[in-house]
Amino acid sequence: MGSSFGTLFRISTWGESHGPGIGVVVDGCPPRVPVTEALIQAELDRRRPGQSHLVTQRREGDRVEILSGVQDGLTLGTSIGLFVRNEDQRSRDYDEMAHKYRPSHADYTYDAKFGIRAISGGGRASARETVGRVAAGAIAMQVLRLAFGVEIVGWVDSVQAIEAEINPETVTRDQVEATPVRCPDPATAEAMIALIEATRKDGNSVGGTVRLVARGVPVGWGEPVFDKLEADLAKAVMSLPACKGFELGSGFAGTLITGSEHNDAYRTDASGRVFTPTNRSGGIQGGISNGMPILLRAAFKPTATVMQAQETVDDAHQPTTLTGRGRHDPCVLPRAVPMVEAMVALVLVDHALRQVALTVPIPKPDGLN
Amino acid sequence: MGSSFGTLFRISTWGESHGPGIGVVVDGCPPRVPVTEALIQAELDRRRPGQSHLVTQRREGDRVEILSGVQDGLTLGTSIGLFVRNEDQRSRDYDEMAHKYRPSHADYTYDAKFGIRAISGGGRASARETVGRVAAGAIAMQVLRLAFGVEIVGWVDSVQAIEAEINPETVTRDQVEATPVRCPDPATAEAMIALIEATRKDGNSVGGTVRLVARGVPVGWGEPVFDKLEADLAKAVMSLPACKGFELGSGFAGTLITGSEHNDAYRTDASGRVFTPTNRSGGIQGGISNGMPILLRAAFKPTATVMQAQETVDDAHQPTTLTGRGRHDPCVLPRAVPMVEAMVALVLVDHALRQVALTVPIPKPDGLN
Amino acid sequence: MGSSFGTLFRISTWGESHGPGIGVVVDGCPPRVPVTEALIQAELDRRRPGQSHLVTQRREGDRVEILSGVQDGLTLGTSIGLFVRNEDQRSRDYDEMAHKYRPSHADYTYDAKFGIRAISGGGRASARETVGRVAAGAIAMQVLRLAFGVEIVGWVDSVQAIEAEINPETVTRDQVEATPVRCPDPATAEAMIALIEATRKDGNSVGGTVRLVARGVPVGWGEPVFDKLEADLAKAVMSLPACKGFELGSGFAGTLITGSEHNDAYRTDASGRVFTPTNRSGGIQGGISNGMPILLRAAFKPTATVMQAQETVDDAHQPTTLTGRGRHDPCVLPRAVPMVEAMVALVLVDHALRQVALTVPIPKPDGLN
Amino acid sequence: MGSSFGTLFRISTWGESHGPGIGVVVDGCPPRVPVTEALIQAELDRRRPGQSHLVTQRREGDRVEILSGVQDGLTLGTSIGLFVRNEDQRSRDYDEMAHKYRPSHADYTYDAKFGIRAISGGGRASARETVGRVAAGAIAMQVLRLAFGVEIVGWVDSVQAIEAEINPETVTRDQVEATPVRCPDPATAEAMIALIEATRKDGNSVGGTVRLVARGVPVGWGEPVFDKLEADLAKAVMSLPACKGFELGSGFAGTLITGSEHNDAYRTDASGRVFTPTNRSGGIQGGISNGMPILLRAAFKPTATVMQAQETVDDAHQPTTLTGRGRHDPCVLPRAVPMVEAMVALVLVDHALRQVALTVPIPKPDGLN
Repeated sequence: MGSSFGTLFRISTWGESHGPGIGVVVDGCPPRVPVTEALIQAELDRRRPGQSHLVTQRREGDRVEILSGVQDGLTLGTSIGLFVRNEDQRSRDYDEMAHKYRPSHADYTYDAKFGIRAISGGGRASARETVGRVAAGAIAMQVLRLAFGVEIVGWVDSVQAIEAEINPETVTRDQVEATPVRCPDPATAEAMIALIEATRKDGNSVGGTVRLVARGVPVGWGEPVFDKLEADLAKAVMSLPACKGFELGSGFAGTLITGSEHNDAYRTDASGRVFTPTNRSGGIQGGISNGMPILLRAAFKPTATVMQAQETVDDAHQPTTLTGRGRHDPCVLPRAVPMVEAMVALVLVDHALRQVALTVPIPKPDGLN
Repeated sequence: MGSSFGTLFRISTWGESHGPGIGVVVDGCPPRVPVTEALIQAELDRRRPGQSHLVTQRREGDRVEILSGVQDGLTLGTSIGLFVRNEDQRSRDYDEMAHKYRPSHADYTYDAKFGIRAISGGGRASARETVGRVAAGAIAMQVLRLAFGVEIVGWVDSVQAIEAEINPETVTRDQVEATPVRCPDPATAEAMIALIEATRKDGNSVGGTVRLVARGVPVGWGEPVFDKLEADLAKAVMSLPACKGFELGSGFAGTLITGSEHNDAYRTDASGRVFTPTNRSGGIQGGISNGMPILLRAAFKPTATVMQAQETVDDAHQPTTLTGRGRHDPCVLPRAVPMVEAMVALVLVDHALRQVALTVPIPKPDGLN
Repeated sequence: MGSSFGTLFRISTWGESHGPGIGVVVDGCPPRVPVTEALIQAELDRRRPGQSHLVTQRREGDRVEILSGVQDGLTLGTSIGLFVRNEDQRSRDYDEMAHKYRPSHADYTYDAKFGIRAISGGGRASARETVGRVAAGAIAMQVLRLAFGVEIVGWVDSVQAIEAEINPETVTRDQVEATPVRCPDPATAEAMIALIEATRKDGNSVGGTVRLVARGVPVGWGEPVFDKLEADLAKAVMSLPACKGFELGSGFAGTLITGSEHNDAYRTDASGRVFTPTNRSGGIQGGISNGMPILLRAAFKPTATVMQAQETVDDAHQPTTLTGRGRHDPCVLPRAVPMVEAMVALVLVDHALRQVALTVPIPKPDGLN
Repeated sequence: MGSSFGTLFRISTWGESHGPGIGVVVDGCPPRVPVTEALIQAELDRRRPGQSHLVTQRREGDRVEILSGVQDGLTLGTSIGLFVRNEDQRSRDYDEMAHKYRPSHADYTYDAKFGIRAISGGGRASARETVGRVAAGAIAMQVLRLAFGVEIVGWVDSVQAIEAEINPETVTRDQVEATPVRCPDPATAEAMIALIEATRKDGNSVGGTVRLVARGVPVGWGEPVFDKLEADLAKAVMSLPACKGFELGSGFAGTLITGSEHNDAYRTDASGRVFTPTNRSGGIQGGISNGMPILLRAAFKPTATVMQAQETVDDAHQPTTLTGRGRHDPCVLPRAVPMVEAMVALVLVDHALRQVALTVPIPKPDGLN
């Protein structure tokens, strides 16, 4: 279980790191949405290994095929099947790992849960699983853009202690894509790149944070109580590999100021639209979007695979030592950006459709206006 | 929508702050679990307003009635109906709020989403809604304790900048309950209490963090990909009113160290059980519990209701000023502890049942051992 | 599990035959729908025991209380809590049944499944459980009527071998309600009543069929593949106590003619609307409503409780004999009519909302018209 | 929406009749179940077109590929991806149908619902969609067989008015597979074959019924109220293309006898096991299996495609005439048998896992035995 996500716009993913490929079924996409392989490919290329010298050098073209649900470039309203064939599987890199549990990886927990695990490459616990998310997210983003004018921009906000200072109201995807580290501040990006390259040489890894803004979300998305918009966003983002923390708006820092400082006053702009001059709420109040940009931040731990000898146990629970090999990321952050964007898009489109479902035309009872 | 939570142990809540009462339906609780009104009441009393001078003075006994699903103190395996009647509703406190949107409250977003809202007391956006969560959580905790030996302890970790230093391996609920602020370190608790009381006098509010440990969770709970244990925990906790951030294990601080520092080595104890001497993973790897204590932290913003004049708009979107009145919490943290515990219990019991469902007896194929 | 139904308009029921009462939570009802206790009561009165001499004489007023989700007669869009207190519980009638399994009842299966069961009155397996369905169905019908102009009429089509011949295009609820047996053909109704009264004197029971028409359903409700409209209708109706069969349109009889005879030709009426002069499809094609009346039929077995000695076993699996006592229905059919209507309404409103969710405004790509 | 089925053993299907292929994702299959392509292929071969002269002559090998979730012949417990490539797509057969609605097909309803439809071959409304069901059902059957000893046998019970008389306690799949019409009574099978061949020559079609027995289902599968085992079976079977009716046990005929005749007495066999000498209940009481064989019957209408001129309208709603062409089934019944079996297997395995989830070890409270 666990490979499906969403209520009305629902995706189901499958595929292991070292099997024939990875796929996703998207069920509930509205009909007549323009969707092409090129649209999806553009997002997959941002997630793809080997895209720059900063990330793992596994060579995957990650070419997507649309197998169903689209006709002449338009969605049919029925389930969409997407498939990406695996190309570069060097299973020999994993020989030693067949019986040794990699520290802070899921080898041990999968073995204990299922009594079996995919020996090569981590199976479903591999970040390769996110191909399905990003492919489906590309379709979600297309719906959000065309039907609602929503724009989602994520970026690398910090690598270890190197932090950027970015204005979420104006940052653009072009700025983000201008450097391979996906930090839209050029000077900070340089420092991050230098740190990641030094870390790679050390055979070590570093973590950091992704920040994201969703602009154009109308007031009214999200549900009371359990399916609050921030709750679904938290689940979506925290389900990504290596994610250890999530914040909306002021987040943990918001606990350091008083209520009178924290509250976002309401005002009305010239067009009569309600807005808040500050946005510590992160665009959501009581679980429902308030029309301001949605602001969130996610923490990604340093990648668990390091090229150093580490203490561990084998699958007979005997002590042993393991030295990481294979082609892994010294820093997952640049590739995490499209993953976070995809998950946010999947949550937003789902709540958008749920809100559309409420627009049932109920006539006013007699005597009311 | 949004008032249900869980897959196999599923709850549905209803009730507004100022209506006849609050209730919850628990569907999927295993049969023959000892459940009494006293068991549930003990948890509700920890969430209850008026329990100490630190929290809102609304006077609610919060007496729970079991209306179905339990016979002679044992669950029947069928849906359990619980009901708590509202007692102290001073709607007049809300007269001014009927047409003015309280800053950083959900008045505006509910009105915009539904075209209508419960005028008094916030309706479903009131923290009173959490009565249903805590009542259901008491049953979840009972299953976890009796069937699996799991123990959940939450505490107030910080109020504004005052932070406690607590050992999650040894902290007990008795220590937590020893002070009204629910911080198990007595000296820190004193400082927190002083800050909250000063804040109340100012008519202001403060936020802080709750930390929680779940001890005794066996290896194997949680699902791959989307329903990772930390993802479901994040959703559960972030769905609580005023929650703005969530961390598992090392959280955001974990991004500041390298992978070789962050990884948790595996070892085997005398009984052959695998463990990790460090626990930066927070007890979960790849979405699945690893047998170590589950460690998490949640940020709660300062309460939005402050007794000071604030700029806002009314429901005709005209500028106005609103001064908070009514009986509200200067600091939600002490009452947040049982809420976080309840949500964690609901997630854990659900994943426990999902894992039990996998224990189908599949015979080994011929020739395998 | 199993006490919830629906995707977007979702209900959760609770309550046993001999506990404090029965309730239902309705989550997902659109906001601003006029809903009163009187509206719901009118449907409950049609399901109520003691409504005529034909049905069980248990005396239940079945007075519904709205506990949440409605303000000044309009739904809030949040979860609606409904409660009906049990009034007349003669548990002594059940003393003998505490240890003997009633033939063709669920006593044995509940005991085997759960290791415990509600001793009095059948617990959740009692038809009293349907109070929650009918109450929620009243709200569903209100949405269908006001927002979509849908009208649902069910009637008793046969009691044992006595069959009515009713025109589904013109039959009205007034005609149905004109006799206590709910068969809109007066002469057939008389014969049915005579049979039921004779059966009661014999201490025996009879079954029969309910037929139902839903008029005004627009084209487009229902989903491809698994959530076909007829599939969800079948589940809904077959989940009612004592229901053993379901047919859409031509049903089993349709297997006796050829394809060229069975097909419904398409024509266009004066207003340009597509229709079929015949309706063997029962208003659904490929799982999706086609704009014609939805026609279905359900079989209800003779009630299992008969006032005659029957061979059975006790809960130690020893052979014994049991003679039915208590106040039971010789024929469930008259009371089944509002139950079937409620279940059909719940399915239709859910699919209506799912279809509304698809009406996302997707702009046409350039170059298309 | 609508392309997913199940709660714990959950499948999601995709693929159109005339696209690249058909697939299914199976999520929630227990780990370590022996599954091979050969196991699945055996069931697909029974569903396959061109398997005999009785069915459509479209030439599809229907070769299944396992793309994920299985390693060295054992399931991993993670999502299983299955793919069947389409081979023989004669789209030219569909030219005329691009703008004319085939009577009693879903062309019109899909167009009206989605504003677009797959022009060739019916898209998701084609019976080709059932490839995914049958492939997933093969895995479900393997779990049922290995873990629970359940055996499912379906057969063609009637073709038009030709009915077989088969003993459900003893019928075997070998007997069913002995004739291409899948009726285990050889003489009746001959008559059915003759009728189908005559019908094909006429360019017409015939319907009929499938009967099915599931033997070895233990007592306790199924849930109270809405997810009754018969309700989920009804939904599953009624979701198959062309299915118009469903009966459990005595079904509609059961309404013709009295309660004292209809009730199944309980007895205990030599081993202490409770059974019923009759089985009018069809193996289910109160929604929960009672340990007796599960007996059901499904009605399939005559195929809508007939080789005769029929009155219809085009997609501009203008009257026109359409004469069926292409390679279609004069009688869907022989191929419906594996489809019904697959759907029943999917329901049973899901409820089996739900019941396993309830086997949480709850210790008895002190003082109870």
